[in-house]
Order: sequence, then C-alpha cells, then structure tokens
Amino acid sequence: MTYCVGIEVNEGLVFAADTRTSASFDDVRVYRKMHLFEWPGERVFVIMSAGNLATTQLTLSRLQRDADDPNAARSLRTFSHLYEVAEYVGETLVASQARVSDDAQQSGVSVQSTLILGGQIAGERPGLYMVYPLGNCIATSPETPYLQIGESKYGKPILDRILRPETTLEDAARCALVSLDSTIRSNLSVGLPVDMAIVRAGDLKVTQKMRLESDTPLYAEIHDSWSRKLEAAVRSLPRFPWEPPHEPEAPTGALPPMPPRRLPSRQDPGDAQGQQ
Amino acid sequence: MTYCVGIEVNEGLVFAADTRTSASFDDVRVYRKMHLFEWPGERVFVIMSAGNLATTQLTLSRLQRDADDPNAARSLRTFSHLYEVAEYVGETLVASQARVSDDAQQSGVSVQSTLILGGQIAGERPGLYMVYPLGNCIATSPETPYLQIGESKYGKPILDRILRPETTLEDAARCALVSLDSTIRSNLSVGLPVDMAIVRAGDLKVTQKMRLESDTPLYAEIHDSWSRKLEAAVRSLPRFPWEPPHEPEAPTGALPPMPPRRLPSRQDPGDAQGQQ
Repeated sequence: MTYCVGIEVNEGLVFAADTRTSASFDDVRVYRKMHLFEWPGERVFVIMSAGNLATTQLTLSRLQRDADDPNAARSLRTFSHLYEVAEYVGETLVASQARVSDDAQQSGVSVQSTLILGGQIAGERPGLYMVYPLGNCIATSPETPYLQIGESKYGKPILDRILRPETTLEDAARCALVSLDSTIRSNLSVGLPVDMAIVRAGDLKVTQKMRLESDTPLYAEIHDSWSRKLEAAVRSLPRFPWEPPHEPEAPTGALPPMPPRRLPSRQDPGDAQGQQ
Repeated sequence: MTYCVGIEVNEGLVFAADTRTSASFDDVRVYRKMHLFEWPGERVFVIMSAGNLATTQLTLSRLQRDADDPNAARSLRTFSHLYEVAEYVGETLVASQARVSDDAQQSGVSVQSTLILGGQIAGERPGLYMVYPLGNCIATSPETPYLQIGESKYGKPILDRILRPETTLEDAARCALVSLDSTIRSNLSVGLPVDMAIVRAGDLKVTQKMRLESDTPLYAEIHDSWSRKLEAAVRSLPRFPWEPPHEPEAPTGALPPMPPRRLPSRQDPGDAQGQQ
C-alpha cells in the first residue's frame, strides 16, 4: 500500500509521499514514490505513484526516455500546457499497463497504477492532476485543493478541515506531514521515510525537497507534539452542560492549560473490587 | 454504513453512534443504533450495532424478550460477569444471523452484524467488548481503550492520539464527537443525528444520554470551532529551516495568534497569466 498527497494552494504546490511497498507482511521494501522532473526556469513536474510497482517503473522509464530524446515528438519537454502533460502521462501509463495485462489477468495480480502529477510550465499557473489507471485525469479545484492516492482515509479529515487556496505553502506542508503521520500510525502498509517536495509558484524548479526519517528533527517534533496539541484542542472544546466551567484563571481566548483531572462525583464501588 | 465508537477510560464508558442507514444512495433512513438496557443500581448495558439492520433488530428483540421473562434461564439480567453477557449476546447474534442466512446466501446480501457491548454489573469494573458476527468477542485494553465498528478509518487518528485510560470521561466524549464529525464530513453513508451515552463507573445506570443534531449548540460549536483549533495547532508546529521564526510578539508557550500570511518571496510570473 501507499499514501501520497498533493496540495495546490495559491502560493504553489506541496507533495508528500511515504516510501513503503509491500507484496505481503514479510516482503516489505523502501521505494521512492516521488519523482522529480526539472528543467529550471522552463518547467518542473513532480509525479507520485500508487499501485503496481512494475507498471510505475515502466511508466517513469518511458517518460524519462522520451524527455532525454531531443527528437521525441511528444515528451514532458514538448507541451505548452500542464493538462496536455497529464494526458500524455495518462497515455504512457495505459501503455505500460497494457504491456503486462494479458499475462496478469490470468494471475489475478492487478497491474494498475494511479498517479498524481503536479508542476508548472513557464507562462502558466501551477497545476495538480490525478491520473487514473484508465489514463483519464481530474484536476484540483478551489473547493478541493488536494488529491490523494493509496490509503487515503486516515489522513483525509485534517486536509478537509484546514486546506484552502489561501493556506500558506508551509502550513500546507505541515498539514501534509500530519496527514502522513496519522496514516503511518494507523496502517502498517504505509511507512517512513517520507519524501516531501515544495514547488513555489513561479520558481519553475523544485523549491524545497527533503526526506524525513523518524529521527529527522522536524518530523520527530511533529510526531511528538501533535498529540499534545490535539489534546489541548479537545480540552478547549465546549463544556457539557453538567460540567463545571473552565478554570477562571485560564486567559480568555487562549487554550486553557491542562485542567486538573475532574474527580468522579460519585462513589465507584467497582474500584475496590477485582477486575473480572 | 455506520460509524460507532465505544471508549473505556478509568472514569467509565463513552458511547457514540451515528443514525444513518442506507440500502443505496436513494434509500437513506434514520435508525437508532445505540440501545440502552438499564436496571439502575444493579446493571447497565449499552449495545451499538453495524451491519444488517434486520439481524440487529432481531438480536435486540430477543435480548429484550429474554430480559423481560423472569423465568428465562439466561438473559441480560442473569449473569454476574460482563464477559458472560458478551458471550450470550454473541450467541444471540449468531442465532439471529442463522435464521436468515440460508436464503441470504443465494441473494448475495450479507446478514452479518457486528456489535459493541459495554456496561457494568454491580461488583465489577465497567467493561467494553466488540462482538463479531461469528459470536466471538474482544475487550478493550489499556493500550487500546476504544473499539470502533463501521466506517472506522476517518475517525481513528484522533482516538489514537488522545485516548488513554487517564483521559477524563468528558474529554473522551468530546474526542468521540470529533471522531464522529470527521467521519460524517468525509463519508456520505454516516450521518446526523448522533446518539451519545456516558456511563460513569459505579453509577450503574446511564449517567448521561443525548441526541445531537446539527443545530444542537454543543455539536454545532464543535463542528464550527474544531477546524480553527486544528489550524492553530498546525501553525504552531515547528518551522521549516527556511522559514522566518514565529512572530516575536506571540506569547511563549501559547499558540500564536493567526500569523499574517507570508508573502511569496519571489515573483510569480504565472499570476499575471490566465489559468489554463
């Protein structure tokens, strides 16, 4: 399994991907799922992949081969619009699947892959697309400024609640890391390290790229501090009608300090008894 | 689909359930999935259900019928230990599924249900069990103080990060409501209103019960304010190396106020161009 998320905000694009591939519980490996294609000042693309690894590698090899060929009629370098690139990547994906699908249909193995493609071509705004196994694709929109592939459910609520086109690039990146961390924590098939790339609008190159391990200070601090921040947020939610109000010394408007544990108001006869 | 969560903390039990059942997108109804069985001062049970509605209703009817029969050899009233109740509920569930399963196997409809059973019998600590369609069951543990049935992935990270045996009953209840709200927001098959019940250890009755609609002040405030709290938490996560530090006027230790949007440091030639 896999989890990748791409985010488009006004300031640019954020990409984050895990690196775990697993054929089964005892066949787990680390593979890069984020691939960068840069022609600085001219165009930049980031492609993330989920699904069959052989299909993904074949697709990326073909994209690279075409891009390296100055005589290629169609390649990542030839198009003027990002949606044309998305269509071309979709065609390449379908062709890569077709090459193995006859054999695969009998084996029961899926050879399908799904991609997230984002980037910018000089003269255009940055853009972000999901490329489906059938080769068709959808773009982000102001209402849905992110796209996910792989194990997407655990990490979706934080994206839904926070991301807007006005979100800063760095806040979007922090949000993506929390989304990844939530998924890694909940699903064994998604694992560290995390690859992250940021493409600031107009830079026409990968502005920042990093690989985060569990001991990378930034990731470790997010991993460690997020639970405490969430707990403080939960505690600052409205009181139930039967609860005493927040401690009066808590400064108005700020999150309250850890309140003292409320003592049970009634006797608990079960406490003195053994557990069943 | 369905989403129900049961939480066991030292202070007692929290139960929360949505109320949407759907046979398809155009056959959506509201059904109570949380069922209370109380003999105040003696024993209290809460049962939540996911899966086939007919199976669930048959199971609950049989449990109620036995409990109403003073001569019943086995019923919710006869056992001294909660794990015996869980086994009995599991047997009743299996029998209810068996009654329709011969016909169902040909129709392709699943008649299985999964239950969460929690409560307390006088002389014991409260307890919480998941009852599987096969009739077997598992309990919570200090490391895993909650159980979920139905559409569980969206609402799981918040539970994983916050719940511990020491969490107060009310904080656990707030956490459950956030978990429900995240799921309702992300999955159409999970819907309002939300039923909630709290059983404080030693009360031997349902201490608090409520139904929350979208316009119930508590739920509305959680729904409205949670995103802002999360956003503040994301903004207070560590800075990236290339970012300026937090605004100096932010009081140390507190979450910073909404920082001014960072201006892009470089020119964005795409801004002046039309979107593709």
